[in-house]
Amino acid sequence: MMFYKDQILFGAAYYDEYMPYDRIDTDFKMMKDAGMNVIRIAESTWSTWEIEDGVFDFTKLHKMLTKANEYGLKVIIGTPTYAIPSWLAKKYPEVLAVTASGRHLYGHRQLTDITNPDYLRYAERIIRRLMEECRGYDNIIGVQLDNETRSAGAASEATQALFVAQMMKKYPDIEDFNQAFGLDYWSNRISRWEDFPDVRGTINGSLSAAYKYFLRNVITEFLEWQSKIVREYLTDDQFITHNFDFSWIDYSYGIQPEVNQQDAARCMDVAGVDIYHLSQDRFDGSTIAFGGSVGRSLKKDNYLVLETQAQGRANWVPYPGQLRLAAYSHLASGADSVMYWHWHSIHNSFETYWKGILSHDLKPNEIYNELSAFGREMRSIESHLINLTKSPSVAILVDNRSLTGLNEFPCDDTDPNTPDYNKILRTFCDALYKLNIEYDLVYKDDPIEKYTLVLVPALYSATEDTIARLKAYVQGGGHLLATFKSFVADEEIKVYHDLQPHNMTDCLGLSYQLFTIPRDVTITIDGNSYPAQGFMELVTAAEADSIACYEHPIWKKYSALTAHKYGEGTAYYLATLLGHDGSTALLRHILPECGISIPKNLYPLIIKSGINQLGRKVTYMFNYSTAKISGQISCSGRDLLSKKVYTEGDPFEIEALDLMIVEE
Amino acid sequence: MMFYKDQILFGAAYYDEYMPYDRIDTDFKMMKDAGMNVIRIAESTWSTWEIEDGVFDFTKLHKMLTKANEYGLKVIIGTPTYAIPSWLAKKYPEVLAVTASGRHLYGHRQLTDITNPDYLRYAERIIRRLMEECRGYDNIIGVQLDNETRSAGAASEATQALFVAQMMKKYPDIEDFNQAFGLDYWSNRISRWEDFPDVRGTINGSLSAAYKYFLRNVITEFLEWQSKIVREYLTDDQFITHNFDFSWIDYSYGIQPEVNQQDAARCMDVAGVDIYHLSQDRFDGSTIAFGGSVGRSLKKDNYLVLETQAQGRANWVPYPGQLRLAAYSHLASGADSVMYWHWHSIHNSFETYWKGILSHDLKPNEIYNELSAFGREMRSIESHLINLTKSPSVAILVDNRSLTGLNEFPCDDTDPNTPDYNKILRTFCDALYKLNIEYDLVYKDDPIEKYTLVLVPALYSATEDTIARLKAYVQGGGHLLATFKSFVADEEIKVYHDLQPHNMTDCLGLSYQLFTIPRDVTITIDGNSYPAQGFMELVTAAEADSIACYEHPIWKKYSALTAHKYGEGTAYYLATLLGHDGSTALLRHILPECGISIPKNLYPLIIKSGINQLGRKVTYMFNYSTAKISGQISCSGRDLLSKKVYTEGDPFEIEALDLMIVEE
Amino acid sequence: MMFYKDQILFGAAYYDEYMPYDRIDTDFKMMKDAGMNVIRIAESTWSTWEIEDGVFDFTKLHKMLTKANEYGLKVIIGTPTYAIPSWLAKKYPEVLAVTASGRHLYGHRQLTDITNPDYLRYAERIIRRLMEECRGYDNIIGVQLDNETRSAGAASEATQALFVAQMMKKYPDIEDFNQAFGLDYWSNRISRWEDFPDVRGTINGSLSAAYKYFLRNVITEFLEWQSKIVREYLTDDQFITHNFDFSWIDYSYGIQPEVNQQDAARCMDVAGVDIYHLSQDRFDGSTIAFGGSVGRSLKKDNYLVLETQAQGRANWVPYPGQLRLAAYSHLASGADSVMYWHWHSIHNSFETYWKGILSHDLKPNEIYNELSAFGREMRSIESHLINLTKSPSVAILVDNRSLTGLNEFPCDDTDPNTPDYNKILRTFCDALYKLNIEYDLVYKDDPIEKYTLVLVPALYSATEDTIARLKAYVQGGGHLLATFKSFVADEEIKVYHDLQPHNMTDCLGLSYQLFTIPRDVTITIDGNSYPAQGFMELVTAAEADSIACYEHPIWKKYSALTAHKYGEGTAYYLATLLGHDGSTALLRHILPECGISIPKNLYPLIIKSGINQLGRKVTYMFNYSTAKISGQISCSGRDLLSKKVYTEGDPFEIEALDLMIVEE
Repeated sequence: MMFYKDQILFGAAYYDEYMPYDRIDTDFKMMKDAGMNVIRIAESTWSTWEIEDGVFDFTKLHKMLTKANEYGLKVIIGTPTYAIPSWLAKKYPEVLAVTASGRHLYGHRQLTDITNPDYLRYAERIIRRLMEECRGYDNIIGVQLDNETRSAGAASEATQALFVAQMMKKYPDIEDFNQAFGLDYWSNRISRWEDFPDVRGTINGSLSAAYKYFLRNVITEFLEWQSKIVREYLTDDQFITHNFDFSWIDYSYGIQPEVNQQDAARCMDVAGVDIYHLSQDRFDGSTIAFGGSVGRSLKKDNYLVLETQAQGRANWVPYPGQLRLAAYSHLASGADSVMYWHWHSIHNSFETYWKGILSHDLKPNEIYNELSAFGREMRSIESHLINLTKSPSVAILVDNRSLTGLNEFPCDDTDPNTPDYNKILRTFCDALYKLNIEYDLVYKDDPIEKYTLVLVPALYSATEDTIARLKAYVQGGGHLLATFKSFVADEEIKVYHDLQPHNMTDCLGLSYQLFTIPRDVTITIDGNSYPAQGFMELVTAAEADSIACYEHPIWKKYSALTAHKYGEGTAYYLATLLGHDGSTALLRHILPECGISIPKNLYPLIIKSGINQLGRKVTYMFNYSTAKISGQISCSGRDLLSKKVYTEGDPFEIEALDLMIVEE
Repeated sequence: MMFYKDQILFGAAYYDEYMPYDRIDTDFKMMKDAGMNVIRIAESTWSTWEIEDGVFDFTKLHKMLTKANEYGLKVIIGTPTYAIPSWLAKKYPEVLAVTASGRHLYGHRQLTDITNPDYLRYAERIIRRLMEECRGYDNIIGVQLDNETRSAGAASEATQALFVAQMMKKYPDIEDFNQAFGLDYWSNRISRWEDFPDVRGTINGSLSAAYKYFLRNVITEFLEWQSKIVREYLTDDQFITHNFDFSWIDYSYGIQPEVNQQDAARCMDVAGVDIYHLSQDRFDGSTIAFGGSVGRSLKKDNYLVLETQAQGRANWVPYPGQLRLAAYSHLASGADSVMYWHWHSIHNSFETYWKGILSHDLKPNEIYNELSAFGREMRSIESHLINLTKSPSVAILVDNRSLTGLNEFPCDDTDPNTPDYNKILRTFCDALYKLNIEYDLVYKDDPIEKYTLVLVPALYSATEDTIARLKAYVQGGGHLLATFKSFVADEEIKVYHDLQPHNMTDCLGLSYQLFTIPRDVTITIDGNSYPAQGFMELVTAAEADSIACYEHPIWKKYSALTAHKYGEGTAYYLATLLGHDGSTALLRHILPECGISIPKNLYPLIIKSGINQLGRKVTYMFNYSTAKISGQISCSGRDLLSKKVYTEGDPFEIEALDLMIVEE
Repeated sequence: MMFYKDQILFGAAYYDEYMPYDRIDTDFKMMKDAGMNVIRIAESTWSTWEIEDGVFDFTKLHKMLTKANEYGLKVIIGTPTYAIPSWLAKKYPEVLAVTASGRHLYGHRQLTDITNPDYLRYAERIIRRLMEECRGYDNIIGVQLDNETRSAGAASEATQALFVAQMMKKYPDIEDFNQAFGLDYWSNRISRWEDFPDVRGTINGSLSAAYKYFLRNVITEFLEWQSKIVREYLTDDQFITHNFDFSWIDYSYGIQPEVNQQDAARCMDVAGVDIYHLSQDRFDGSTIAFGGSVGRSLKKDNYLVLETQAQGRANWVPYPGQLRLAAYSHLASGADSVMYWHWHSIHNSFETYWKGILSHDLKPNEIYNELSAFGREMRSIESHLINLTKSPSVAILVDNRSLTGLNEFPCDDTDPNTPDYNKILRTFCDALYKLNIEYDLVYKDDPIEKYTLVLVPALYSATEDTIARLKAYVQGGGHLLATFKSFVADEEIKVYHDLQPHNMTDCLGLSYQLFTIPRDVTITIDGNSYPAQGFMELVTAAEADSIACYEHPIWKKYSALTAHKYGEGTAYYLATLLGHDGSTALLRHILPECGISIPKNLYPLIIKSGINQLGRKVTYMFNYSTAKISGQISCSGRDLLSKKVYTEGDPFEIEALDLMIVEE
């Protein structure tokens, strides 16, 4: 077991190089006082280490490492490759990616063409130099590769040539390529690879999706390449990680479309995630739970929260109590670290108002005080919390090809607000979450047999193999809930040319030929009526039971929600999007049929559980509201915080923004 | 009379080259079973025929033509010039148009610079080769030139040089040019043609409008050039056509700003149009009627509907009955064809979800079934329906220079929602339509004497000649209804420098010097009050009768609606925009004064009529609502569908989304 | 005293070169009849004077000057440098500025790179030639340099090199530069000036702000350079001016972010401004008052209104009476001129519908008639109105560095509607205005001792020196009202790293560490509750009196509004933005405490006053409403318009859109 498994990692990103004056002792002492044990450094410091081409200065690195050691702080080192120095861009303009809008200007991070040989040569040199400098520091526990890696939409001639080479390899016969991508359309077909159209101008959704897939693989290969370099310098007890982030709508929302995170994580020892969430009255823990499910999914193990907000943006400043609640929420999802971005608020540049633990005055404040209290409390019980083993009975199948497919071919291409993949996904995630049903996320090649219910939202791109596996799962007794826009297209986002849902008509017991956009359409589940939203398939349930039909003068003969016995299992199908309330009603209807019981206490009382290192079940009970909650407890054991012992059925009370952690 | 005049053309665009597998026999048999008799092929197939520069393969063409013949299907061949092969763009990058945003990337259709000599040379070769291959196929009834031709905003140096050459020719004295365009302003004047400013940067609305006019002429010349090539290969009973489309706001909305369609149609034998309309609860037939008026206007004859939707976009999927009603609606407007885009839904690329008759499963479905029923029914009575002669008593004058003028100089340049030309136009079209008053569209040089009423909406650019013709029309007993923003500027969009409306103050009996944007202003017509919208001229009706003044504390002394006897006729003027209800009230007030009576039965009961080939009056009565309509019939004759005989005044009933076709 | 001080300048911009035919005698006679005495000419006429490179034709200039003299019209000559001829751009493409979007296309005005040597050489030649031609015309009273000068975002390599040179000079040690701008962040630091990053791509708000500051200085230097050239040709009684404009939200809204107007005005004799304001029901005089405060601030003297609207845009067409009221409103603010843009409405190009006094028909109209009446009336009393000396007791400190700072670092960067600098500024200006408290604007180096109250809205960038001066002002007995987002950052927009508000915690008696965005937060002032808007600092009023705290379940312990005795004076602090009503309540609370009494008669009755040349107090009383106002008068004297004599307390009545001018 590696070091970090012994203690919960609690700390922050630290940038000595950004400090307006030397205060490293002050800072590290404050950290230590707060129970912190780790800093994350160096991930955007290339120009600090390599001040000119080949001229290096690692003074600040050594200072940070030495001082950290002095104060008992462990260190995670980031390779500094995601933000390049100005001199590199001046010398090799081609290191900046070219997109349909031309070449990026220097300035922003993550604009590098990570396929560019000059960039890679310089990146390798700085990584190796940094790793060499890091040798011998025992307090370095791990290395983070790059930072929220992006491909910058790279589409230079050279990058496109790599793509074409892959296409040539995949399609030895160019006619197969034309056919797979439907290039006859609008005269886009080619008969020689030299005539390959510039992907930047393409109107072919399959080609565009294939290029995005290629770019996701570029990231996987880039991180793997970095991992091999870094690995040369590491001891066995030092880990490699990366901070994976999410799709973004002012907070961490859905799966990251630009990275195949599971693939990218293969070269790593432990997965790291960046979770930013709503706050104040909109703080509900749903994004922490979602991000945790992503974190657990990548290595099928516990994960690190490498970044989360302290103060964050102005509208995120937490209410007193919310930071503590958020920190425990991460642990309850299986995180073994809570690390903030960042220690101090920066005085210049882009993220001046993405505030850290300390405000610009660099003094203790309410944020620091709350975290210190949490740190002391957590340390006293951490052996009961660390390395929690989680076993949800529900899995949700997520898929980046389908996400891309729905971007290329939206539900309603006339409506800018048409539901996208992550909207559909999160609707289910959040409905489960608020029903206190924990869920795993799985990818198409992951085993699913252990789950009682597998949700398949909008699996637009479904290979024959995936379809076969899902059918086998149901046949073997599993429960499947698939939605509209699933099983539509193949790997290349070409729509299947037989009855939809492709190859699932037998399993689901239904088919459809037409679909439309609902206007004033509702469906009724268990006596309550909910609006159909964004898209509706006009399903004929030939063999399935119709749980609900559309309520509409014309469309009423079509099914909206069905159930079908198939082999030993049951396959449910939802042909339209429901809102949060409708989705909740749907799950309340289906879950008990699958044998999954819904707890009595529901949101704002959130329950999360797992087995700790001592083999005991730990049940977190969070109160996300700003009012006290009381009820009857549904587990037995001792509250690690109050030390009070409960037996199932006992009354309990939780103060506003407070929690209990009941250990069996 | 050419072949297609014997039968109503009923069919679809067919793309064998897009099919996922060979199924041409299945498809053509299904078409034949549905009463279809025509396919439209080849319009975007350049890369299929010419796989490399000079390497041709017409296998699929011959297969389609031979099979079509076998199944009794006629064929309209499209020249494949609107979508170029990738190899052509690689070889001659200049074939892609340059605009203010730079050169277009390859991929999308209609981005070619159709003035480019290399493009034209290659286009001529593929047209000639295609025409040669088509020789000897008796079932080819006509050729469509290109497809919805665009100029792609072409503004390369070479294209601009053509424009400047035309300006030099039109303005031999450069001072006249400076004066006509007001180039003294902001130092834009030139004293040598070499200093001609780049039109891409111009802020001169007249210059910008002149360039758009030039680009419209480029399209006219391009189609004429194609027609001459194609004509060399045609027999006398093969026609030339083109599918003209419309301005677009999620459906076919107004006249097409980028093409002078009447000019462009001059080289053709029959006009074709592409009509896409709203559906489901928003299906009202107004766009079919508008598109039909455009279709009839181009050659002053019947026209072809070369494209209309089957399923179309997701929000267009028709209610049962709407496709049949739409098909008859086209015929009732004078169409001699109803052709769908397209037979099958495509499995890849840009229009995957612009669905055809068949869904992606390529199986019969409800859409196909409804069209089959229509096909059989229509064939049984087509000799009574075909080649209908229409004679509306109302004409609306439309003008692309005025449309451009209002784009360059909007009613309110601070309001992105300020009414544009087509909004003003369609307001009148749709008010007439729902009052069951059919209308023709006319262009500025068309004869207007035969009409009882001529509407002139927003004729911003009005030449002296047009003004003189309109005045002569009124003087000779005609009725004119002109609106605000008419008679403002000359051909070059220079505002006239005398009293407005220019040279019409005598005819209209009024003038104005000021205009503004209404806020909380209403006008009252026949006792009901309607909001003034978007723009209002502060009209002093010196000699005209003021039908309505503005209701506003300050503007109340100005007229909003006037009538003026002039010679034998009457000239009405509307100084502001009214909504649908206000426009309807206005027409209800004016039409009877012009001697045009408004039918008793009104929308959702729509009446359209004409004289058929047998010389008998045919009156279509459509029920566009989803409820039954009953009333007293206003014509006499036999319903061709039910075979029931009616005498004027008899009661009638029409089911939801059903119709009667009463032949005298 | 120069000529223009003897008479109020009343006239319009005149463009003989835009006229559709020769009508100069007609126009000048109409002007003279209207009491006008001045025209402004030539500011965008380069291509008219210099028809080709080095070929000049000043015929129209001499015609205008000669004719103007004949009709007794004075002339202000504009240097024609803000709109370049096409031939110049063809010959030297580099004269057009380069921005992040590439090089501007020729066409629009103000796109020139005013640092470009070729441009400057040609500009100097045309200015000198024009000045030579103007010699000997006694009726030329002044010269306007350029027109609403802009730097066009110039960022060519050459322009950026000038910027870098200035940075090198300011920061001899490049490490200081890195530190001041926080360039370590995201690897942006440089160790050699040759590696200076392209500012067009920067994400560093300090760097971006410094470049904007540089560009503002470019304008100052450009105007100074022009002034030196022009000055060589002027006699002592000819003045130099410039028409300074404002930030724009469909009208003149706030201070102009692209020009340091006070600096730029240093080389001038008299300040000129362009004031465009709302009209009709939204006409309230607030923008005229604001613009007047700007005008007075530039030279601490009376100013010229060089442009204001006659008809203007369609939605500005004034109600009868509004033009006269507006004209007197300018005079009451200390303007010595009222000049319209422009005499006649233009028949082509960009500003066809920015209408002048005359409509396109060039005939007398209601606008002309109202202005004529005003002209005659004003002339009869002008010696009592001209050269008014104003002495408000309130000053507002404005600062372009802070404006830029808040643009780079908005209150809420997730909200596109987050309040910007000018919004915050105008909220206070307009609240004061409607309370009939006149105000001066001051800049950071202006003396403030004479004011009873100094308002400091959002002084985001505050140097130590400014802070010290404000503290001294309070200590000496002054009253300060500062707001949120003041005293945050230094000159380079680097946030201070000590307790906020920086160095003002003692003076204000408070501090804060956290801030957030209010949601459902109110504050109560004198019994009424007002919403907190856009931003709120969580202030702990250690020593200050808390006038109001936030009304919110969580934030209630923090102060929103405080007062603190400091030395002899009082410092108020407002930690959030209030709307108009809240700001008014705040001022009603504070002003009396400062010893400033609020008049009884308030908006729509507006009172403005000053001392005229005769040493008598003149009090304007405007009725901005469309209803009659009556009340008791608060001053004594004779109404110059009605000649009626009033004693304080007498009843008075003012008709809708009318006024009184009471001279003591």
